[in-house]
Amino acid sequence: MDIKDKVGQRIKELRHELGISQEALGNKAGVDRTYVTDVENGRRNISVEILEKLIKALEVSFQDFFTAKEFRK
Amino acid sequence: MDIKDKVGQRIKELRHELGISQEALGNKAGVDRTYVTDVENGRRNISVEILEKLIKALEVSFQDFFTAKEFRK
Repeated sequence: MDIKDKVGQRIKELRHELGISQEALGNKAGVDRTYVTDVENGRRNISVEILEKLIKALEVSFQDFFTAKEFRK
Repeated sequence: MDIKDKVGQRIKELRHELGISQEALGNKAGVDRTYVTDVENGRRNISVEILEKLIKALEVSFQDFFTAKEFRK
């Protein structure tokens, strides 16, 4: 699992915790729904600025985002 | 301080902890020395793949990288 997959999986996980759709997350973060789909599926090598938008929309900190088993090693 | 600055500052901090030059970090991560300079100065909106290369070269985990005061909120 590469870093794009790990980031995508974590975004999906947090989005499910919030109980919102990809479209709702996209609207909140200011990105397209199809972009969220691509990110969640590990198909985008996103920048830290886009990552920050998504993390804010997911209502967590960077620290919380990366305190997940996927990123421990 | 935007996310590019925060990431740059954290990279510089960890590089200093390792006691290596920007050139040495660049060589280790497979990026140019001038690129490291730009990143540390918050002038690059880097991708998660490049961030991963730098984090690995700094010998920390993503979790360690983002467990810093800059990223707490």
